[in-house]
Amino acid sequence: MSDSVKLDAKAKAAETKKRFLDVWPTLEGQLVDVLKSHGMPEDATEWFRNNLSYNTPHGKLNRGISVVDTFEILQGRPLSSEEFFKASVLGWCVELLQAYFLVADDMMDASVTRRGQPCWYRVERVGNIAINDSFMLEAAIYHLLKVHFRNEPSYVYILELFLETTLKTEIGQLIDLITAPEDEIDLSKFSLKKHQQIVIYKTAYYSFYLPVALGMRYAGIYSDEAYATALSILIPIGEYFQVQDDYLDCYGTPEQIGKVGTDILDNKCSWNVNIALQKANEKQRKVLDEHYGRKDAASEARVKEIFNELQIDALYKEYEQNTYEKLNKLIDAIPESTAPAQQYATSGNVSFSLL
Amino acid sequence: MSDSVKLDAKAKAAETKKRFLDVWPTLEGQLVDVLKSHGMPEDATEWFRNNLSYNTPHGKLNRGISVVDTFEILQGRPLSSEEFFKASVLGWCVELLQAYFLVADDMMDASVTRRGQPCWYRVERVGNIAINDSFMLEAAIYHLLKVHFRNEPSYVYILELFLETTLKTEIGQLIDLITAPEDEIDLSKFSLKKHQQIVIYKTAYYSFYLPVALGMRYAGIYSDEAYATALSILIPIGEYFQVQDDYLDCYGTPEQIGKVGTDILDNKCSWNVNIALQKANEKQRKVLDEHYGRKDAASEARVKEIFNELQIDALYKEYEQNTYEKLNKLIDAIPESTAPAQQYATSGNVSFSLL
Ligand SMILES: [Mg+2]
Ligand SMILES: [Mg+2]
Ligand SMILES: [Mg+2]
Ligand SMILES: [Mg+2]
Ligand SMILES: [Mg+2]
Ligand SMILES: [Mg+2]
Repeated sequence: MSDSVKLDAKAKAAETKKRFLDVWPTLEGQLVDVLKSHGMPEDATEWFRNNLSYNTPHGKLNRGISVVDTFEILQGRPLSSEEFFKASVLGWCVELLQAYFLVADDMMDASVTRRGQPCWYRVERVGNIAINDSFMLEAAIYHLLKVHFRNEPSYVYILELFLETTLKTEIGQLIDLITAPEDEIDLSKFSLKKHQQIVIYKTAYYSFYLPVALGMRYAGIYSDEAYATALSILIPIGEYFQVQDDYLDCYGTPEQIGKVGTDILDNKCSWNVNIALQKANEKQRKVLDEHYGRKDAASEARVKEIFNELQIDALYKEYEQNTYEKLNKLIDAIPESTAPAQQYATSGNVSFSLL
Repeated sequence: MSDSVKLDAKAKAAETKKRFLDVWPTLEGQLVDVLKSHGMPEDATEWFRNNLSYNTPHGKLNRGISVVDTFEILQGRPLSSEEFFKASVLGWCVELLQAYFLVADDMMDASVTRRGQPCWYRVERVGNIAINDSFMLEAAIYHLLKVHFRNEPSYVYILELFLETTLKTEIGQLIDLITAPEDEIDLSKFSLKKHQQIVIYKTAYYSFYLPVALGMRYAGIYSDEAYATALSILIPIGEYFQVQDDYLDCYGTPEQIGKVGTDILDNKCSWNVNIALQKANEKQRKVLDEHYGRKDAASEARVKEIFNELQIDALYKEYEQNTYEKLNKLIDAIPESTAPAQQYATSGNVSFSLL
């Protein structure tokens, strides 16, 4: 891309993000109105409003915006305001799904902050009520879908996409939770295969496949093959994204990743440690067993030494190069008969570059 | 009813319960197979199996069986085995919905036991993973509905019934949680109106309306009026049921209620305390403010004294008589034009006597 095309793309992305954000207050209002219309006490309606506004719109919003981008690419023309609004409703439903998962994940991980603010369950008076609040974030999805999509031919498919993706994500969360509990370190439970399963189920389906598939559904694409093709590209993209995230947790600068990485301290089943376990000799393995997932900086440093000895850095560069080539091949190999072929690739790229 | 008719009804109920229970292992197997078919590690599939079997089939099953009864009454003839099976799938989905709510409710209430066994989150190694486990109990509903109802004309209505009831129950749970937190006693937040809202939203919709509405949907009833009529009877029945439950928590024998009541100790926004607050003079109110919701037997005894002074017992008997008459009038008033009128009344009665 030339510099001016890049600049245009950047300006358009910023404009889309602004318009997407502008949709949120309307949806928040419609959700709070459910409680009002049922005559609920004001402390309850205000609680729900805080739950929604604290947990939903403060992320990067890439997943939500990806629905809008996919839908626009598939239409092949600028969207009308009504189309933009409705695609944004689907996008905000993805953001609500993520909010639902994150509120709960933070409780299960005993995390302290999220998106630069205290985790919701740590806010005064919230505590374990956050469990029910996470439920309500999920239920909000289906209320919005009913209000805005009840009369669309894609309605039942959209419901199923959300419901099935939810189960897949929860399966991924389950393997993650029982493979890498923070208080029971057992590296023999780790493997690259499990890492891949966790990544695909816990992250890739809802972050990469779901937004594109929603855009396709709303655009009226019915061919099973089209969804299979989208899946076959978007899941590996999601996997690549997570491997990069894992890698940067250890090797990225705080400026790059917006935080200080804690995967080693937190006993995370990350790509780095799984590669290390695969390559380690007996002595190195012993160090990993003794120091991985311990809550002290000295242990963390010992693990990083082993990572450096094993050249995780170089292995990641190799993985990145291979994956880049593999993904491009996958995109090139989309059968011309799979209409509209070029679009998936592009939607794939949208996610690829955005997330 | 004559004694022999009563006996027949009892034998039939026992038979239905047995057949309903016999459906569960098939459904549990289908759910566990989802994880197996995705190649999940065995510790994850076994975890999910334990989650399902520990939390789903050990209740009274009245809600689930009520779907089968309603459907059979509406058919007006004995069900084929396929019909019985499919109505039971809906019934088990109601039981899964309840399991989802209860696993989470026990965490939010810091409860110790449920149905005579430790609460799921208190089982060894479970802890906060129970949050994700509750999510998976909910997701199980939509998997079973897709497998067994995807091709039924009622599919989308059934999905919506579950989704909307879920939101209503969570709204009820929210008001309950913020009105009566265990650690922040403030009786000025209580009122009979709030009690009614909590009861209707937290319990009546999913326990009374949902099973009957599901039976009606599966039976192919489409008239909005029919559902409005069912609602207008089943919600007051649910309310009555909960008032009775609240009353017995204080005045029932342990044999009657299968446990020792703890509503006073737990700062519950129960019918008894709301009536007491309405009737209490200044002195009595002061005792309630000082002793309600405190975790000691002496305070509990002081509250019970006030309840006795105010004759909650007699007031309940009066409420019960009035409600019985009101409900019968509601049932009698079902317009003949609302086909099939008699059936709602009967389904109502089914719930009335069973739950
Ligand atoms: Mg986390
Ligand atoms: Mg986590
Ligand atoms: Mg990370
Ligand atoms: Mg409870
Ligand atoms: Mg509770
Ligand atoms: Mg009770």
